[in-house]
Amino acid sequence: MRIGILGGGQLGRMLALAGHPLGMWFRVLEPAAECPAAAVAEHDRGEFESYQALFAFCQGLDAVTYEFENVPIESARWLAERVPVFPTPRALEIGQDRIAEKVFFQELGVAVPPFAAVSSRADLDAAIDRIGLPAVLKTTRFGYDGKGQAVIQSRADIETVWATLGGRPLVLEGFVPFERELSILAVRGRTGELAFYPLVENIHRSGILRVSTGPANGVSWELQAKAEGIARKALEALEYVGVLAVELFQAGDDLLVNEMAPRVHNSGHWTIEGAETSQFENHLRAIAGLPLGSTAAVGQSVMINLIGGWPDPAAVLAIPGAHLHLYGKRPRPNRKVGHITVRADSEREFVDRVRRVRKLLEG
Amino acid sequence: MRIGILGGGQLGRMLALAGHPLGMWFRVLEPAAECPAAAVAEHDRGEFESYQALFAFCQGLDAVTYEFENVPIESARWLAERVPVFPTPRALEIGQDRIAEKVFFQELGVAVPPFAAVSSRADLDAAIDRIGLPAVLKTTRFGYDGKGQAVIQSRADIETVWATLGGRPLVLEGFVPFERELSILAVRGRTGELAFYPLVENIHRSGILRVSTGPANGVSWELQAKAEGIARKALEALEYVGVLAVELFQAGDDLLVNEMAPRVHNSGHWTIEGAETSQFENHLRAIAGLPLGSTAAVGQSVMINLIGGWPDPAAVLAIPGAHLHLYGKRPRPNRKVGHITVRADSEREFVDRVRRVRKLLEG
Repeated sequence: MRIGILGGGQLGRMLALAGHPLGMWFRVLEPAAECPAAAVAEHDRGEFESYQALFAFCQGLDAVTYEFENVPIESARWLAERVPVFPTPRALEIGQDRIAEKVFFQELGVAVPPFAAVSSRADLDAAIDRIGLPAVLKTTRFGYDGKGQAVIQSRADIETVWATLGGRPLVLEGFVPFERELSILAVRGRTGELAFYPLVENIHRSGILRVSTGPANGVSWELQAKAEGIARKALEALEYVGVLAVELFQAGDDLLVNEMAPRVHNSGHWTIEGAETSQFENHLRAIAGLPLGSTAAVGQSVMINLIGGWPDPAAVLAIPGAHLHLYGKRPRPNRKVGHITVRADSEREFVDRVRRVRKLLEG
Repeated sequence: MRIGILGGGQLGRMLALAGHPLGMWFRVLEPAAECPAAAVAEHDRGEFESYQALFAFCQGLDAVTYEFENVPIESARWLAERVPVFPTPRALEIGQDRIAEKVFFQELGVAVPPFAAVSSRADLDAAIDRIGLPAVLKTTRFGYDGKGQAVIQSRADIETVWATLGGRPLVLEGFVPFERELSILAVRGRTGELAFYPLVENIHRSGILRVSTGPANGVSWELQAKAEGIARKALEALEYVGVLAVELFQAGDDLLVNEMAPRVHNSGHWTIEGAETSQFENHLRAIAGLPLGSTAAVGQSVMINLIGGWPDPAAVLAIPGAHLHLYGKRPRPNRKVGHITVRADSEREFVDRVRRVRKLLEG
């Protein structure tokens, strides 16, 4: 099976690494001259907006997927007329727009934080009157890793924030007094088969995911079922095929949807070692029409992103249960260049191993 | 780190798949136009005998290894003058010659089956007089997967066997009344660090490995220690760096060495899912001078080779705990085109899963 991936970043690289053993073959479309996926896939250098590039890219492919959600929706639709594209462009379209996403979940009867569309200074004032402060002003599109957003703590911040973000379609989101951020990775196959990974707990700093613990601690059966119910509604409404990540806020027994990503997700990297079947393999199984693999956790894992650089690989690999993943990217401030997953079968080992990795990263 | 691999087969492919997450980069030298490793590594098409090809191949590499032991020893030596080559060419040289291999182990004080070098018809008669029948006549070099060997059950077989094999350097090996075939995968790092996987039980048919069970059942602590002792002697005598596979015959509490392979080995494929660190990753860690990873088994695994073709991937993947590995090779009789590893944490699950895979393969 020949799979095309829109985007050549680390998600594409990890998809290809998971798919080669299944006998799959990969081509990525990526405008950059160098990209993480190029080491393990054919690299078509081209712009996502170029129909000539898209035409060349899709020749001989059995299916196309994304590893990057800011692919122009028109390009995804154009491809979908020529080759099966999973997830469907509709999911991509919703995932690209923070307002469409919130409306989508609201219509499914799923709670989301208070929000208001903002297209002018007057809108912003009205939104603040309604939602209150503090709140976060975000561009509706093309935001990632904390880019395109700013917190408004008090009315004194408004001018500065507006000067930075004004003029683009925006959304004001109210702060929710949540206890923690969770995410659920869910998969739907071409036949409608469903599978859900255990809830993951995520820690962000400056808008960038730092640490994911999978499975999350202290998750009741009911909370897991609630998260699965939310993901299931979204998967079924979209006739989705592949892995969908839904980021959630937990407030007591309640879950609110923060956002969704119609692709494999950073908060699922721990599944490479920490689950029977990784999110990457399950995404590929889904889009290839193969049965889904078990999503059961194997012991306890934590994934720590390597941002801006990485420690000495020898020091990482000297720690039992520590798995190093480098993406073949040049170090640059605030750039995700790899991750470490620490896995253990017992609580005692887990605590000890995590302590050693943290010490290494802080040292 | 830029690693060169001599040979572009499935072992090279699985090495590259294991090494990319560590941030390694791969180039393979392989004369064939298409090869399994080409999907995940740069493919230099060239002959192992061509110094021009070797020169181009080794440019910019930090280390070279083999995935194929019939590389001309002169080529390995020539490369070793230009770039670190692991394991050392001396290990390759011994591994290429069945007589050198047996003499090497004998000199280490390790038991091997009775054998005699045969270079003429007269030698063969004398060897049979000394060793007895049945026995196996083998070419000393370039044999693999049962090629270049024939069983002599009685003196009536001699003429036919001689007609097929005579004229090349040969070795007659006596049959040993063994209970089962085992192998030990051992690793030695650049600093001399050692690690040993649990003993594996292997089943061959027509000279081709069919099934490996890892860890082997019913292995006492003493038997494991004996096997490790044998491997350790070989590793240390050769100042070996990388994974070494030693095939053994078990007769009661005794172990005899059948042969060794100075590379990752088919009987270690189960370690991808069945051990904390796979043989592929540990081979790369060793040659890169990184700390070795844990060789502990994770549950119970069995690896079944797919020879000449493969079953419907959907049927394989529908079985829990079944992991499919296809090598991107065209099906051809007696060709290893992939393998399935079945892994489980409990005996009950293991037995059930293996039964389902066997039924699928027989069906």
